[in-house]
Formats: sequence, structure tokens, C-alpha cells
Amino acid sequence: MKNEPAVNPDRLLQSVSDFAAIGATPAGGVNRQALSAEDRAARRLLAERALARGFTVFQDEAANLFIRHEGRDAAQPPLLIGSHLDSQPTGGRFDGALGTLSAFEVLEALADADVEIERAIEVVAFTNEEGSRFSPGCMGSMAFSGAANVADWQAARSTDDVLFADELRATLDALPEAEIRPAGHPISAFVELHIEQGPVLERENVPIGIVTGVQGTKWLEVAFSGEAAHAGTTPLEFRKDPMAAAAAAIARIQDGIMPSDPAARLTVGRISAEPGSVNVIPGRVSFTVDMRHPDAEALAAIERRVHEECLAAAKRWGCEAAIALRVDMPPGRFATAVTAAIAESCAALGIASRPMVSGAFHDALFVNRVAPSAMIFVPCRNGVSHNEAEFVSDEHIVTGARVLLGVALQLAS
Amino acid sequence: MKNEPAVNPDRLLQSVSDFAAIGATPAGGVNRQALSAEDRAARRLLAERALARGFTVFQDEAANLFIRHEGRDAAQPPLLIGSHLDSQPTGGRFDGALGTLSAFEVLEALADADVEIERAIEVVAFTNEEGSRFSPGCMGSMAFSGAANVADWQAARSTDDVLFADELRATLDALPEAEIRPAGHPISAFVELHIEQGPVLERENVPIGIVTGVQGTKWLEVAFSGEAAHAGTTPLEFRKDPMAAAAAAIARIQDGIMPSDPAARLTVGRISAEPGSVNVIPGRVSFTVDMRHPDAEALAAIERRVHEECLAAAKRWGCEAAIALRVDMPPGRFATAVTAAIAESCAALGIASRPMVSGAFHDALFVNRVAPSAMIFVPCRNGVSHNEAEFVSDEHIVTGARVLLGVALQLAS
Repeated sequence: MKNEPAVNPDRLLQSVSDFAAIGATPAGGVNRQALSAEDRAARRLLAERALARGFTVFQDEAANLFIRHEGRDAAQPPLLIGSHLDSQPTGGRFDGALGTLSAFEVLEALADADVEIERAIEVVAFTNEEGSRFSPGCMGSMAFSGAANVADWQAARSTDDVLFADELRATLDALPEAEIRPAGHPISAFVELHIEQGPVLERENVPIGIVTGVQGTKWLEVAFSGEAAHAGTTPLEFRKDPMAAAAAAIARIQDGIMPSDPAARLTVGRISAEPGSVNVIPGRVSFTVDMRHPDAEALAAIERRVHEECLAAAKRWGCEAAIALRVDMPPGRFATAVTAAIAESCAALGIASRPMVSGAFHDALFVNRVAPSAMIFVPCRNGVSHNEAEFVSDEHIVTGARVLLGVALQLAS
Repeated sequence: MKNEPAVNPDRLLQSVSDFAAIGATPAGGVNRQALSAEDRAARRLLAERALARGFTVFQDEAANLFIRHEGRDAAQPPLLIGSHLDSQPTGGRFDGALGTLSAFEVLEALADADVEIERAIEVVAFTNEEGSRFSPGCMGSMAFSGAANVADWQAARSTDDVLFADELRATLDALPEAEIRPAGHPISAFVELHIEQGPVLERENVPIGIVTGVQGTKWLEVAFSGEAAHAGTTPLEFRKDPMAAAAAAIARIQDGIMPSDPAARLTVGRISAEPGSVNVIPGRVSFTVDMRHPDAEALAAIERRVHEECLAAAKRWGCEAAIALRVDMPPGRFATAVTAAIAESCAALGIASRPMVSGAFHDALFVNRVAPSAMIFVPCRNGVSHNEAEFVSDEHIVTGARVLLGVALQLAS
């Protein structure tokens, strides 16, 4: 090791700014959806910068883009760091891009310092994490981890009615400099830096979150059926009021679940009453319940509790309850070897951190199936994400990259 | 008095059937909206039958139609009985028509028996009670009682885009046999028979309701504003969840108001959450509250309680509450002289009855401002009204008319 490698703040911030210009929206966000012309332009810019620094560039059949900085022992599986470059249609400039560009800054910092590392480090930009133009999201990391096959999506059509197979082919062909390999080569570990997309770090004034896992998620659709009747002429004892039942059920689950378990999340985001007239007791009220918990058993217990409260409220108001499970994603638990390395990097740099669980999905959740993985979160303003107003301070950008560099040095040495 | 006057069941039931044919819908209801061709046809049929029996027919400038059976002392103000002939667009055959035709049956029964009564009895069919084609409802009784002037509505347009002034004129002109008088001639009292439009009489198996008043009504629009946020990444302590606040408020007011006051009615008929995504904590939830009570002070207390519960729930969930009063109709209390006469008529006939308060508005509410008024309710199946499925049994039709005849004999003697 000739010099102590260090993040170059100006270069990193300029890089974030350069990539934000690709698909920039008037409101300051980006529209750089997966496999679009803008996505290809971002991939080209990253590949050109990598080639200019002498790194190897390749892609896999899912159009995941890799940039490799060679290690002393080329036979050892590389450490993987990175995130994604695609965005929501009215997305921010940091979601995905920050993790990818911070990882590339780590490679450049190592190259600047002419550091010899034990194993290679590869930066990855996974394909279609957002899932907004082509469904599902996390295509690239699913293909990489064997959770799905690229062949499964060939016939999929985008929101702008283009065939997935055509857009994938065109994206691969747009980078002839990058050899195409089969998806899923061995790696030693994966570290993904990402914005929190929630308010905790900012409000607690902690610059780094060490993500120990991803919550499990269940979505329920609840429908209460009662009897539509005249608001003025129907006494209480003749009412079968699904709105009263729904309110009672929602109030009970809001009171009974989150306050007693800080790791639980419960949200009723959608509700409707039919016929929906001021002076008519509704005949039917339906609502959704989004439940999340890092522990599968705790999540199952929450689901049971919601069932019980809904059935009790329906019964009390003379209504029928129908409850359907629409989404059921088990929790993911990241590798302690990687979270320990992140904690050590923070400690060595004197940077405050806290363990936390991600409320949203990320590519690391899938990569974690094939190699020890974890994530580094940095704060974003007001927790706002998937929004053109998404914002991360320069200080937090640089701090995140410094921690990532420290982790990479540990895990690649 | 030569004979004991008596309702002729066959004639009354045939009459109900004859009028149900005017504007009949395929589903068995009627579409006989105010001042329409169908409404004019019904008025013509009633007027022709009245003239055939030798009664006097006249109308007032609001197109209220009157049929007068003369009393011994023509100088005394007449007793008024009746209801309305117009219907909702998909209305039933009994709402309004039953009260008008039962009143006409009373006149025929008196004529059959050649009874000499002290004061005249007039049957009235008030114009546009429903308010569905031209707004507002109860135009005829408002004009009759001085609560409004026909001149106020001349420029109003119907749902089928016709001018009120034109339809009123055409309706008046369609009955040249009926002299047109100023609205609001003196009367001694008013009795209106009507279907209950609620479930109480049927479920308690009581054939007659003695209506002692009409509930006051207040409508609130409540809007809770919080902060839209990610369902997965936002812990409880950072949530400003207007859905949780709305559920808590609605549950509290449903638990706190009707169970402790059998005369209170409280309904949340409409609710919406924005943005309305399964995985987004809503930023705004709005709902309506329909509150009714026969006592003005009790109604005001309910409104205060709803305010308090909404403000407390909003505060607890870190939200702002905006509460707007959209409708404020004070309660009406009918005349005890008239309700006593109804009770006496029931008792004399050995017919069970119970006092009750109307949850809906009626013409009698306005007429009560200028003369002692009350109403007789008869049961309807399942409380269904404003619906083509509206149904009243033959037995209840005849019983109602018998009670009305008894009341008319008392109040006109």
C-alpha cells in the first residue's frame, strides 16, 4: 500500500451531479427508467469513466453492469459493491445512483492511492430495481442471485408498450465494449449503500445506518359488508354499519400493534365506502392493511391480530368480513460479517451509526441469498424518496462513501 | 250523520294501483318527478275523480293541488290532509302517493256516508316534495307556509335542463278546471299520512306511528391533514397519520353517542384517503358526519362532542383537523293537539300505535309553521324507500286510511 486511500469529495459530488443530468426533470429529479435511452446513457457514462481509469467493464445477460478493479489474487471471488442506476418516472437523483457512484468512487480512491488489495472489487449497477417501467422490480439482482431467470421476462411489455426482450437486447448492444457473461458469477460478499428513504437517521442526527435486515411485508384487503340504510330513519339497533366496523377495527389495530412493538409497521392507506352518500349508512366498506416486521413470526402474529380485530368489529356491527392476503414477502436478515465490517469502519472513522431495518426492498435482499450481504443507509431530507424533491446533503454523501471505502478495504484484504 | 263513514278497502287499493301506473317503471316503481308530464297526468286523474264526486278543485300559484269537501260552516278554516304525488326518478309507488290517496279516500268515505262535518276538509297534493328534478325539495309546502316564495325559483333549471317557470306554468295550465289562488290560505290543522321509510314499525310489528316531530340534522365535513410517508420506512413516532386519526375519531363518536341516547343518529357515509396507495401513509383523509336528533340542544351537544373527538384524535396523531358545517336544519316538533287526535283515533279503532320521530323531512314540517300539524306513519318492508322495491302491505294501507279518517272526523267536527 503506497498511500492511504481516501474519498475525493469534489469528484464524488461532481459525479452525482453529472449523472443527475441524465434524464433530469424540470423539478430537479430524474426520469431514468430501466432499459430506456436515459438508462443506457447513464450506463455508457459509467463504463467510459471506468475504462478511462483502466478498470475492466463487463455485463451479464440481465444487463447488470460490472466494473472490476483487480486484486492480488484474481482467483478469489470478488467483493461486490454498488446499487442501481434506474429511477422512478418522477424519481430523485440519489435513489440507486448514490450507491452506484459511491462504489465507483471507492474504486477510484483505490486506484488513486495505488493500493494493492487481496481480492478484486467489482462495482455493480443492477438492472431495473425500481420496477416502474417493467415489472417486477429487482430484476437484475433476482437474475444474479438465481431467484428468477431473464428468460421469464422476455415477453413482458413496458408501460410505454415496448417488449422487454427488445429493450434488453438494445441495452446490451449499446455497450459493445462490455463483454456479456452469464448471470450469477461467484462473489465473496455484497455491500450496498443507499439513501434511507425514511426519516429516522435525519431526525436522530445519525449519519450512518447499518442495515441488519429487510422487513417482511404482508398486504391485506379487508371488506366489511353490512346493509345500506337511511341515516335519519335507522336506529342503532337496526344498523349493520360497515363504516363503524371498519373504524373500530382500524382504531384497534393502530392502538394494539405499533405502540407495543417499535419494529412493527401498520398502515391503512386506502379506504372506500359504498354507496358513499352523506345520508346513507354504507352497505360496504373496504380498506387495505400494509403490515411489516423484520421477524417472520412477529409478522404472522400481527396478521392474526388484524384478522381477530376485523372479525370482532364486524361481528359487533352485524357485518360480514372478507379478508384476503394480497402480498406476502418474508423478512430478510443481512450477514453479521458484513454489518460488523460496516460498524468497524464507522468506529475507525469516528462516525456515529445505528443498526436499523430497511422498510423497503433492495437488490441486497436478493444478493444476500448467494453471498453475505448488508447495506449502509445515509439520511435523506424529511425521509422523502421516490420523489423529485429527494435530497441528500453533500456531507452525508461524502460520509457514506468514506464508510463504504473502509468496509471495502476490510472485506477485500 | 246518516251512516258511520268507513274506508272502502277495494277502492283505496285500486286507487294506489291506478296512480302507480302513471310513470310506472319496469322494476315496479315509479318515475313521476315534479312538474313532469307524468306528474301532470297524476294531478289530472286526481282532479277528475274529485270533480266526478262533486268536490271543489283548485290549485295555488305553486301548483299545490287542493280538493275541498265542504263543511257546515264554510267560514271556518278547513282541515288539511294529504301529502304529495311527485316521486324520485327511481322511486316507489307509496312515498307521497299513499298519503295523498288515503286523504282522498277519507273524502270519498265521508261523501259515501253523506256525513255533515263542521268545517271543510281539503286534500292537498304538494308540489315537488322530492326535490330530485328541481331543487330544493318541499317547494309546495314552503310556498304554502311562507317559508319561501315561488318567485325565488322561477329561474331554476331541472336536471333535464328545463326552466322551472315554464314547467310550473305548463302544469298550472294543464288543469284549467282548477282555479288558481294565491298560496297560503288559512287552515285549521294539517295531517299527513306517509310511509315510515325506516324499519322500526315493521320490526316492532306496530301498524301506526304517531309522528311527534322531525329530527334536526347537521352535516359535517371533516378533513384530517397529516404527512404522506412510506408505509415501510416510517416508524410510529414519525407518523402523522390522518387515517389512524379518522378511525379513532369515528370509533369514538360511534361508541360515545348513539349507545347512550336512543334518539340520536350518527352516520359516516363517505370517506376518502389521499393519495390512496396501499403502501403510503395517507397525507389527508376526509369524511362526512350526518348527525340527527329531535332536540336542538341535544343535537348541538352531539356536534360539540364530534368536534372534540375529532380534535383529540387529530392531536394524538399529529394531524390538523378542519371541520365544516354543511347542513344545519333545526328539529321540528309537531302539534300535540294533532298527535293526540291520532292517538285517540288509534285507540278508538283498537289499533296499536307508538310515538316516533321522523328521520326524514316532510311537507308537514313546513306546514307546521302556520297550523298545528302532525303525521301518521305506516310500516314499509325492510324500511326501504326512495327505491323501486318500496312496499307497503294492503293491510297497512287500509289501517292507515282508517286512522286518518278517524282523525279527520275528530278535527273537522
